[in-house]
Amino acid sequence: MRMIRTVAARPGTTGVRRSIGDDAAVLEPSAGTLLVATTDLLLEDVHFRRRWAEPADIGWKAMAVNVSDIAAMGATPRWALVALACPEATGSEEIEAFYEGALALCDAHGVVIVGGDTSSSPAGWTVNVTVLGEAVAPVLRSTARPGNLVAVTGTLGRAGAGLAVLERDAAPPAVDPAILAEVTAAHLRPRPRVTEGRWLADAGGVTAMMDLSDGLATDLPRLLAESAAGATIELARLPVGPAARTVAVALEQDAIAWATGGGEDYELLVTCERGAFERLRAGLAGVGGTSLTAVGEIHGGAGVRWVDHDGRDTAVAAGFEHFSRA
Amino acid sequence: MRMIRTVAARPGTTGVRRSIGDDAAVLEPSAGTLLVATTDLLLEDVHFRRRWAEPADIGWKAMAVNVSDIAAMGATPRWALVALACPEATGSEEIEAFYEGALALCDAHGVVIVGGDTSSSPAGWTVNVTVLGEAVAPVLRSTARPGNLVAVTGTLGRAGAGLAVLERDAAPPAVDPAILAEVTAAHLRPRPRVTEGRWLADAGGVTAMMDLSDGLATDLPRLLAESAAGATIELARLPVGPAARTVAVALEQDAIAWATGGGEDYELLVTCERGAFERLRAGLAGVGGTSLTAVGEIHGGAGVRWVDHDGRDTAVAAGFEHFSRA
Repeated sequence: MRMIRTVAARPGTTGVRRSIGDDAAVLEPSAGTLLVATTDLLLEDVHFRRRWAEPADIGWKAMAVNVSDIAAMGATPRWALVALACPEATGSEEIEAFYEGALALCDAHGVVIVGGDTSSSPAGWTVNVTVLGEAVAPVLRSTARPGNLVAVTGTLGRAGAGLAVLERDAAPPAVDPAILAEVTAAHLRPRPRVTEGRWLADAGGVTAMMDLSDGLATDLPRLLAESAAGATIELARLPVGPAARTVAVALEQDAIAWATGGGEDYELLVTCERGAFERLRAGLAGVGGTSLTAVGEIHGGAGVRWVDHDGRDTAVAAGFEHFSRA
Repeated sequence: MRMIRTVAARPGTTGVRRSIGDDAAVLEPSAGTLLVATTDLLLEDVHFRRRWAEPADIGWKAMAVNVSDIAAMGATPRWALVALACPEATGSEEIEAFYEGALALCDAHGVVIVGGDTSSSPAGWTVNVTVLGEAVAPVLRSTARPGNLVAVTGTLGRAGAGLAVLERDAAPPAVDPAILAEVTAAHLRPRPRVTEGRWLADAGGVTAMMDLSDGLATDLPRLLAESAAGATIELARLPVGPAARTVAVALEQDAIAWATGGGEDYELLVTCERGAFERLRAGLAGVGGTSLTAVGEIHGGAGVRWVDHDGRDTAVAAGFEHFSRA
């Protein structure tokens, strides 16, 4: 690996014996912990567009989506490896801004960059981040059980609303700039639920967990497949954010579709014992004020039954597909 | 992370609690070991060309270059995460061949794939591999000392010769096909020195180590910079492979330049105590017959002094630059 030195973990950082400057990083896991590892590749014009994503946004998001995967295990993210390829004409200030964005996310969660790779790209920005974390008892997707409640943290649909705004040629008229800023920031700078994931994993009563990267309509079936179970979700209970609703009205789009299919909200999808829910909801509210909303329940069978406001079965927008395929 | 299921480590694999199917892999490091981690990004038309690299070659090499970094620490590679993006028109049989190539390299070294990511690419194949390993006492680049000998495993220049052959429109005339096959395989399917790295790390007397990915003329200065030392290298002692020499004659090129600047041989660059060299050489010959050749020595100062056959200072070809920059 070949890595620019400025972003390396400093000598003496806890858990880092050696970082940039050698063939590989040398790390010291905490005794008694399991290692949790995830990787994601982000490509220009598949996962972001340079027209609306600044280098610092790209760095932040590439780190955030991986940290979110660690958070979804209820684990503690500790170390990151960052591989970057960008066009030869890219200025050094853009590359520095990329790493500053990644480091800002790292600093918020105590993650250190311990290695990586840099090369030139013949076609656009390409970023791969790997994040390593630790956990004593990681929470899996495969352990949801019939009778459990299905819940989500925070609100849904903001990132989908943000992407709809970013992809337009002009800002939608008659929408408060603060609302536009909120939804575009939700898309460009997602905030992984690290503290919440750890708290939920430790609280007792949580049976399974994952992060919502592709939208409830795509991600929940993945959890159900791993758990060999089905679920019923009541659309009226989905915590669609007010900013997403406002933007949906302005753009004449469907906020519920963003909530189920927009993807990239990076909230946690949680299943829990029915009797534990109220304790978990109240407890999480005390951890930085994050909401936890019950949206349905797990049962036998397979797949998701979506129920509308009138209690009738309905269909929802499919989960997020990268916009290159749209 | 999103990963095709077929390549996942099977349930019950030692050290793997959970692999494909969750937000992150859950791994169980061996008690008392340090974690060693490296990542490398390979891009079409920067690191390989589809004209001469089959999908299985790309998979093999992307894994091999990372495993080689782990080998260079004297560590044991254990787990890999593989992120792949390829054009939407890519056939499933090509994607399967890619993973088969990666798995073939993994199987040779007891490495299991525990996670990864897949997406479509608007421009060519993009691969990122992260490999995690374990070591009790990793061998660093920063610990070479004046008076140490500088040695390399195996032979140098074959991968450079192989690239020269691959980049031609037609095979060089009058060269034995077996020799052409040897040098192109050296470039397309490098064999990381895992067994040798572990043996050398355990044998005592080795002071520093790294792998030769960019060529001696680029990599040795990196080791020297980390160790705050200089070195003298005698070109006459470089173990240039006979196949590389034959191809160099046929193409009217310089085999020494391939040995110092061709890169991608993935041999080990070793520094050792002078009195330990003969024991290390004989011992390594007993480990699969791998040669260890002394090529110079470490001294104070900085940088490399290259000495020709007549004992005069000379200059050598610079280390490998990716061919997109040539």
